Amino acid sequence: MTDLYQQTCEVCRADAPRVPVDEAEVMLEEIPLWRIQQQEGVKQLARNFKFKNFIEALAFTNTVANLAEEEGHHPKLVLEWGSVEVVWWTHKIKGLHKNDFVMAAKTDKLYEG
Amino acid sequence: MTDLYQQTCEVCRADAPRVPVDEAEVMLEEIPLWRIQQQEGVKQLARNFKFKNFIEALAFTNTVANLAEEEGHHPKLVLEWGSVEVVWWTHKIKGLHKNDFVMAAKTDKLYEG
Repeated sequence: MTDLYQQTCEVCRADAPRVPVDEAEVMLEEIPLWRIQQQEGVKQLARNFKFKNFIEALAFTNTVANLAEEEGHHPKLVLEWGSVEVVWWTHKIKGLHKNDFVMAAKTDKLYEG
Repeated sequence: MTDLYQQTCEVCRADAPRVPVDEAEVMLEEIPLWRIQQQEGVKQLARNFKFKNFIEALAFTNTVANLAEEEGHHPKLVLEWGSVEVVWWTHKIKGLHKNDFVMAAKTDKLYEG
């Protein structure tokens, strides 16, 4: 199977299936630093990235934001001094699509540089 | 009195006083779209700004981030498609300093353009 980070987002419709738990567990093995959280009933993938100051955290915010625009899939980015929390989920299906795992893997690659 | 947005942040020490409630109420009149919220016992000033897409929200994130670096006082910025939530508080005193009201007023000015 192609690594997640090498894949691209596919068009997602409102009736697209959410990722089943067993598939989610397999994909999480490729992105072990991400956690699945639930916000108002919606499952999301989240990871907190650390930086040594505000400027570096801001730069990473922009890098992930540019990726989001390229792929047409947008996360929540929580920027604070020294950290950025990235949260991926698919609004249309109110949960996790495979695209979110792909984007999480790509985010990891951007962090690794 | 000089308008809040025209003031600059003063150096804040850990033993600086938090803003008393009556002073906070007076300053809030200058920034009526901000709310005071409590997060784990820490009072914060928060406002949600709306945009027509992700790119405009990202641009505002950068504008506020640049102000933060200039003033040496950093907020939490929650960037999503079409919105940015800006949250100001003073970590050193675990609450609201006058600086936070000044920064909120400056943030409003940046949004007004």
